[in-house]
Amino acid sequence: MQPLTGFRDFLPPACAERNYIFSKWRETARGYGFVEFDGPLLEELDLYKKKSGDEIVRQLYEFVDKGGRPVALRPEMTPTLARIVAAEHRQFRKPLKWFSIPQVFRYERPQRGRLREHFQLNCDIVGEESPEADTELIALAIDVVRAFGFTSRDFVVRISDREFWTELLKLEKVPPERWEETLQTIDKSEREPREKTQERLGKLAGPVFEIFEKGGESAKLNKIIENLRMRGLGDFATIDVRIVRGLAYYTGVVFEVFDRGGKFRAIAGGGRYDQLIAQLSDNAISLPALGFAIGDVVLGEMIRSNPAAREQMERIFASERAVEIYVVIAKEDQREHAIAMMQQLRDRGYRVDYSLGEAKVARQFRLAEQTGARFAIVFGDEWPHVGLKDLATAKQESIAHDKVLARLASISA
Amino acid sequence: MQPLTGFRDFLPPACAERNYIFSKWRETARGYGFVEFDGPLLEELDLYKKKSGDEIVRQLYEFVDKGGRPVALRPEMTPTLARIVAAEHRQFRKPLKWFSIPQVFRYERPQRGRLREHFQLNCDIVGEESPEADTELIALAIDVVRAFGFTSRDFVVRISDREFWTELLKLEKVPPERWEETLQTIDKSEREPREKTQERLGKLAGPVFEIFEKGGESAKLNKIIENLRMRGLGDFATIDVRIVRGLAYYTGVVFEVFDRGGKFRAIAGGGRYDQLIAQLSDNAISLPALGFAIGDVVLGEMIRSNPAAREQMERIFASERAVEIYVVIAKEDQREHAIAMMQQLRDRGYRVDYSLGEAKVARQFRLAEQTGARFAIVFGDEWPHVGLKDLATAKQESIAHDKVLARLASISA
Repeated sequence: MQPLTGFRDFLPPACAERNYIFSKWRETARGYGFVEFDGPLLEELDLYKKKSGDEIVRQLYEFVDKGGRPVALRPEMTPTLARIVAAEHRQFRKPLKWFSIPQVFRYERPQRGRLREHFQLNCDIVGEESPEADTELIALAIDVVRAFGFTSRDFVVRISDREFWTELLKLEKVPPERWEETLQTIDKSEREPREKTQERLGKLAGPVFEIFEKGGESAKLNKIIENLRMRGLGDFATIDVRIVRGLAYYTGVVFEVFDRGGKFRAIAGGGRYDQLIAQLSDNAISLPALGFAIGDVVLGEMIRSNPAAREQMERIFASERAVEIYVVIAKEDQREHAIAMMQQLRDRGYRVDYSLGEAKVARQFRLAEQTGARFAIVFGDEWPHVGLKDLATAKQESIAHDKVLARLASISA
Repeated sequence: MQPLTGFRDFLPPACAERNYIFSKWRETARGYGFVEFDGPLLEELDLYKKKSGDEIVRQLYEFVDKGGRPVALRPEMTPTLARIVAAEHRQFRKPLKWFSIPQVFRYERPQRGRLREHFQLNCDIVGEESPEADTELIALAIDVVRAFGFTSRDFVVRISDREFWTELLKLEKVPPERWEETLQTIDKSEREPREKTQERLGKLAGPVFEIFEKGGESAKLNKIIENLRMRGLGDFATIDVRIVRGLAYYTGVVFEVFDRGGKFRAIAGGGRYDQLIAQLSDNAISLPALGFAIGDVVLGEMIRSNPAAREQMERIFASERAVEIYVVIAKEDQREHAIAMMQQLRDRGYRVDYSLGEAKVARQFRLAEQTGARFAIVFGDEWPHVGLKDLATAKQESIAHDKVLARLASISA
């Protein structure tokens, strides 16, 4: 009777929380002029084998379908985006500013903040080389987190540039086939003992640790920070060369969002992947691109553990009544009138409920209160008048049935 | 570069159409007091093997996960709902009125109106025996289709009762293990030549054809039709014994929604499945239940082919601007001011875009118009004044930069 390990049932309260997160995501991305797209949940296995990097491929939900095709549940959205853009970009003015809210799947050991499925907001800009695009994307990542009530005391974006590291790898003559592994080691270094990183890096350990200590500066990153300051978002960002990102396809500026308290995993992350579309299209199309993703699991934990963020969410839940009007049938011979009225109310957009089975009047009122309805409309002896009861004040007025709609409209106005 | 056969890429225009459908679905279900839930996309294979019937099981996307578990992509939502309700129902007042919008998957030959994936609105009532619940559910199914601008000239709900058929099977002493196959044959009879149905039914053909001709009547169905009339929905419904539904678990009233013109497959369908929760919980919990599903593929085709429905959709698209305000940077030294203003506008909920790369002023205005923005704000020589241009009328006013927000608010109000 349980869902699979690492998968979630969304009972109505959890689903409301998810819808709240999705709606803030959509609202913020649209504020930046992003438009929504989506792709298939299942893709050809090759799409990921080629481009996502070994770690993701090891964690794929992959199988052979009934037609003999090797397929996989999407572990991330970027390969799908790159595939769609390579095929369809001519229809659209560049730069594209696209977002999506895919569910993604990875077979790994479930642990706090990491399940086998989660939802992500993905925001990508395609067809723009200028660092202003990197800034726009980072600003959006910041505003997506701010939308939930978090401030610069709660979180920070750590910004880096893969070119720090790829230039070092070139300088040290590391063969290209070892780059991915080396970048992964640098990416993981914060979460592992220094000795382990040292051992894995071998003769590279010295120069890498030197860069860690001295930090990084570049005209490009300084410009990004300066532009974030113009937006009033300077307090949310810092340069940090340790950020590398685990995925294979990043080429330039990369960033990750963390809570200041260090209690959670990375909340969000992304960067530039200028080569991916060319690689997927066998160099038929070359378009610079960059994007980030934020997941619902860590974000949900953060919201629940932050009083201001939780209060904002609960305030919105309280303002959304599942039921606005409850129809009480006090006399069974009034059912016909009650049901006709209910349909009229629903046609006008009110959320209306009633007791499907026959029930005592007291019980119907109790149900009305439990649903959180604002009004009850009572059909009883007074027909063609009905009772309109405000369930908060318990005040009831008698009103001609054909005046109810106008009366409700005047109260809402 | 293509998606898998039978799977869809949702480019922004298609995604907007999908969001329009989802939003009408949510709005209508909530109008009936339904609350949203969701379950996992992947479930244990057994959940479907036991209860969904042979046809669905043959079409499952099934595989063994990396932990050795036989699993399947959900082909329908009802088994997940039944599993969740059996485990969690004590937390909730009955009857439950729950809806969900799952994506579901079946490996079958893709054809018009039927892909290998689609989205469904599922609405279910759990814990209510009275036929008023059947009526409430059928009324919701009607209103879900009406929400897109369709009338009783466009579609009809055909209502039946499986008990017509199960009573016949009992009477004719058909062994229970042959019921499912027989019901499937009756279900398919409309889409197959009479001879084929006759051959499959054998000695049952006579009594079955007799019921087809004479039609069905029952106190229960008449009560449902009468209640739909009270709601003003009588014109949308008819009794039709040929409706059986393909799934194994239905026990009582069943119904399907069709376009009057007969151009499309069934738009929606559902019914009572009073035994399913007991079966899934090994008789630990018994709760009467009923539900229906409507898919996005046939509905989308119907909307696009019906002038009134298409016009309603396009009117809503036209009213939703992807970009409201476009920021034009006429002098590069004004970028700082432009970007600061943009952030203020976005913080107040406006959808704002600008040119990420440096561009000539004429080109920026062209981009502004292409995005469909209502206003451009121009940062040039006049600072601390800026230009506020109405892109529909081409009228431009000069305004102090710190008065822009108030001016925009007064125009919107």
